[in-house]
Amino acid sequence: MSESYGAVLFANQAFYQAFNSRDIALMDRVWAHRVPVVCIHPGWDPLVGREAVMATWREIFAHSSGGILRHQEERTVVDGDHAFVITYEDPGEHPLVATNLFRHEEGEWRMTHHHAGPCQSIPPAPAEPSLQ
Amino acid sequence: MSESYGAVLFANQAFYQAFNSRDIALMDRVWAHRVPVVCIHPGWDPLVGREAVMATWREIFAHSSGGILRHQEERTVVDGDHAFVITYEDPGEHPLVATNLFRHEEGEWRMTHHHAGPCQSIPPAPAEPSLQ
Repeated sequence: MSESYGAVLFANQAFYQAFNSRDIALMDRVWAHRVPVVCIHPGWDPLVGREAVMATWREIFAHSSGGILRHQEERTVVDGDHAFVITYEDPGEHPLVATNLFRHEEGEWRMTHHHAGPCQSIPPAPAEPSLQ
Repeated sequence: MSESYGAVLFANQAFYQAFNSRDIALMDRVWAHRVPVVCIHPGWDPLVGREAVMATWREIFAHSSGGILRHQEERTVVDGDHAFVITYEDPGEHPLVATNLFRHEEGEWRMTHHHAGPCQSIPPAPAEPSLQ
């Protein structure tokens, strides 16, 4: 696994950690500052621009009673300073799949776009490598 | 409008033209050759890799009775050799929104990822500029 690949997965995990812990400061750090950002929640219309995107997370965190969104990366593509991760999301009801885009800026991989929508099923997680 | 911006929109339109005309040769030209590609049809699981993606278009074109998918670009972000377009899709039933990723390769903008899912509504198209 290349260094960039691992760093992109780290950024993707930080996004879900911010969501699950309702951590608005971490969510703010996850999203890019220098390039335009867009967020499409499941079934919603697109939210365009950093202000609108962060406002929606503040609203979701304020009105959500909690609950853990489990995630499972399906595919990660790193191409120079750009990357996208296809991630299954399991909110406990209908399975979702997300496209998460990242841009390398100021030494960090930051999210530029999140689009989550329904999918048919979530495949079993690959087995953890065992130490023998 | 920068040259890149117009060329990305042209590539996005070519994708919908290929779909609407059931033109598998054009659809093949739309998708990138040199980088990994992913396609998520509405409600489907992700299709990973060029072979799987093109197979699904062949199947859809073979079994679809036609019908025009109108599209309307909402937002286009160009960042070097990478771009994404947020596009409303109107299949005539439930409105959709798509994330379309493009990569500049071999002098053309080519699609690397398509993710379509439900949205609430499609805003009215902006008025065409009038010549006065």
